[in-house]
Amino acid sequence: MRIALAVGWWRIARAKIAHTKFVRNLICRPLLSVDSPDIWKINPGSSSHFSSHPSSNFSASNEKIGVVLDGKLIANDLKSRIAGEVNEMKKAIGKTPGLGIVLVGERRDSHTFIRTKVKACNEVGIVSVVAELPNNSKEGDICDAVSRFNDNPSVHGIIVQLPLPKHLDEEKIMNVVSVEKDVDGFHPLNMGNLAIAGREPLFIPCAPKACLELLLRYGMDLRGKKAAVVGRSKIVGLPTSLLLQRHQATVSLVHAFTGNPEKVTCQADIVVSDVGTPNTIRGHWLKPGAVDPKRSSGYRLVGDVCYDEAIKKVAAITPVPGGVGPVTIAMLLSNTLDSAKRCYDFT
Amino acid sequence: MRIALAVGWWRIARAKIAHTKFVRNLICRPLLSVDSPDIWKINPGSSSHFSSHPSSNFSASNEKIGVVLDGKLIANDLKSRIAGEVNEMKKAIGKTPGLGIVLVGERRDSHTFIRTKVKACNEVGIVSVVAELPNNSKEGDICDAVSRFNDNPSVHGIIVQLPLPKHLDEEKIMNVVSVEKDVDGFHPLNMGNLAIAGREPLFIPCAPKACLELLLRYGMDLRGKKAAVVGRSKIVGLPTSLLLQRHQATVSLVHAFTGNPEKVTCQADIVVSDVGTPNTIRGHWLKPGAVDPKRSSGYRLVGDVCYDEAIKKVAAITPVPGGVGPVTIAMLLSNTLDSAKRCYDFT
Repeated sequence: MRIALAVGWWRIARAKIAHTKFVRNLICRPLLSVDSPDIWKINPGSSSHFSSHPSSNFSASNEKIGVVLDGKLIANDLKSRIAGEVNEMKKAIGKTPGLGIVLVGERRDSHTFIRTKVKACNEVGIVSVVAELPNNSKEGDICDAVSRFNDNPSVHGIIVQLPLPKHLDEEKIMNVVSVEKDVDGFHPLNMGNLAIAGREPLFIPCAPKACLELLLRYGMDLRGKKAAVVGRSKIVGLPTSLLLQRHQATVSLVHAFTGNPEKVTCQADIVVSDVGTPNTIRGHWLKPGAVDPKRSSGYRLVGDVCYDEAIKKVAAITPVPGGVGPVTIAMLLSNTLDSAKRCYDFT
Repeated sequence: MRIALAVGWWRIARAKIAHTKFVRNLICRPLLSVDSPDIWKINPGSSSHFSSHPSSNFSASNEKIGVVLDGKLIANDLKSRIAGEVNEMKKAIGKTPGLGIVLVGERRDSHTFIRTKVKACNEVGIVSVVAELPNNSKEGDICDAVSRFNDNPSVHGIIVQLPLPKHLDEEKIMNVVSVEKDVDGFHPLNMGNLAIAGREPLFIPCAPKACLELLLRYGMDLRGKKAAVVGRSKIVGLPTSLLLQRHQATVSLVHAFTGNPEKVTCQADIVVSDVGTPNTIRGHWLKPGAVDPKRSSGYRLVGDVCYDEAIKKVAAITPVPGGVGPVTIAMLLSNTLDSAKRCYDFT
């Protein structure tokens, strides 16, 4: 997974403080309950009646050393909390959360991802079951494997490792996953509930949830910030754009058809990149714009690639590996635990 | 409804030609089947490897007289086509599309909207049934009214006129509407399927569909264009942003927490405005940016208000009334017809 996340300078001072404290001061922040009514404050004639430009929060020293958002640290903390809750559940009601994994074919990367996920389950006490199917499986065989997990009361979350072999209809197979066990959050009902303000999906996709966790843990206030999400897959880009919107960020979704995408990213306070193609995000996407001196001194975020270039320009960045990836895995565990808690009405 | 839509100069020449021809050359364009794979063409070192800036399409004369996108004309054309199909269905299988309308309380604007919708149904031969409930109705009463429409085989579309009186739980009531009859397209499953590339919702919300119809009828190519959607309601802003994304536009969703929203709208080729508060979009949101001379001569779109100011600055604009509104009503009829056709497997 090549997701990367970087944030502008405006929170650098606070982020440094937060960094030292956040492990001690863990708060289980709800990632969605931030809906605020859209009340448009109109002050005719004034162009500054909306929230002030965040440039006013620049650190006085303006020292440009990017903070590396430590995904491993956050993931370990999340996992230790999840392990505690799994243990409590076992003691209290004798139940253990279970994750059903459908793995089709021989792709080496898919097998590596699944090994990582199974290992993470083991670490926190979640039971994982992998249904492995050969590359030449028929659609029906895979749907059957998913259905068996749907019907299995000890399985609370189901993931189908993507991508599937090309001869298979991904949509048809994903449609079989019960919405109550859709811990990847890819079901259109979960996506729709993520999109619509005031509604709550049963599950938020893991990678966007991880991005938000990183931003919030480092004390970043997203309200009114400009965010550019590069890539619009249902796994990362699309749901990240929706989740950032729910947090009152102004989101631009950049994709392969975007003209001059670097002009969008250059203006953004937060850039989440999930292009999946190396070297897409070039150094010049991060260049200080020649437009506005205020803006030229900060607010750049970068990801995916050109890490060495980016670290010198951004306020904070996630490394690859060790950034969004480990937190994404932790969020899968978290979603599976949540599902089990919901299933047994255990709080 | 205060939706407005305006587009930049780049298509002005073609729009004028299209305007005279489009009624004769009606094509039933699929509003969703435009998904293209996101193939990122990487050309390291070049900042212009994406689609060329639309400024290259400026009309030579650069004459700034905004074309008024005539919603009434398009709506009439759509309605005459729908009437023809309703008639054909009646002749062929003896069935007529039916729309069930739930109207709660005494709001004058809601009653006006419903009268307009009922009149439009009559014009095309769709049967409409209005369930009127008093302002002090209980949630259960309204849910029952919706359920009766769900169970009625001669009702193919159901709308609940919003807003509902404040004591009622809108989400709970809307959840009762069968997804197969959700002609407003507000069901999270429809919204999720609109959001996810490659999927097709059963219904696209009517106002976004109307905006796209206006843009496409006037021959505008949305691929790679910058769009700013102002407002993010589930009725207009959110689904419009999703639909424009499906058409390969680069969308920024502006809301009440957006800092300096005029900076976003000034850069957009298309602005869809659905703020609902008069005078939110001021003249200075449309000012030529002092940034880039190429951009300063065009690409502004505006809506909602300051129509007299806007018409002099934009390439094309929808009036209020007579713009998006009538097409939105026509789209409700179209969705109801589609639902009936799906129900009877009638093509």
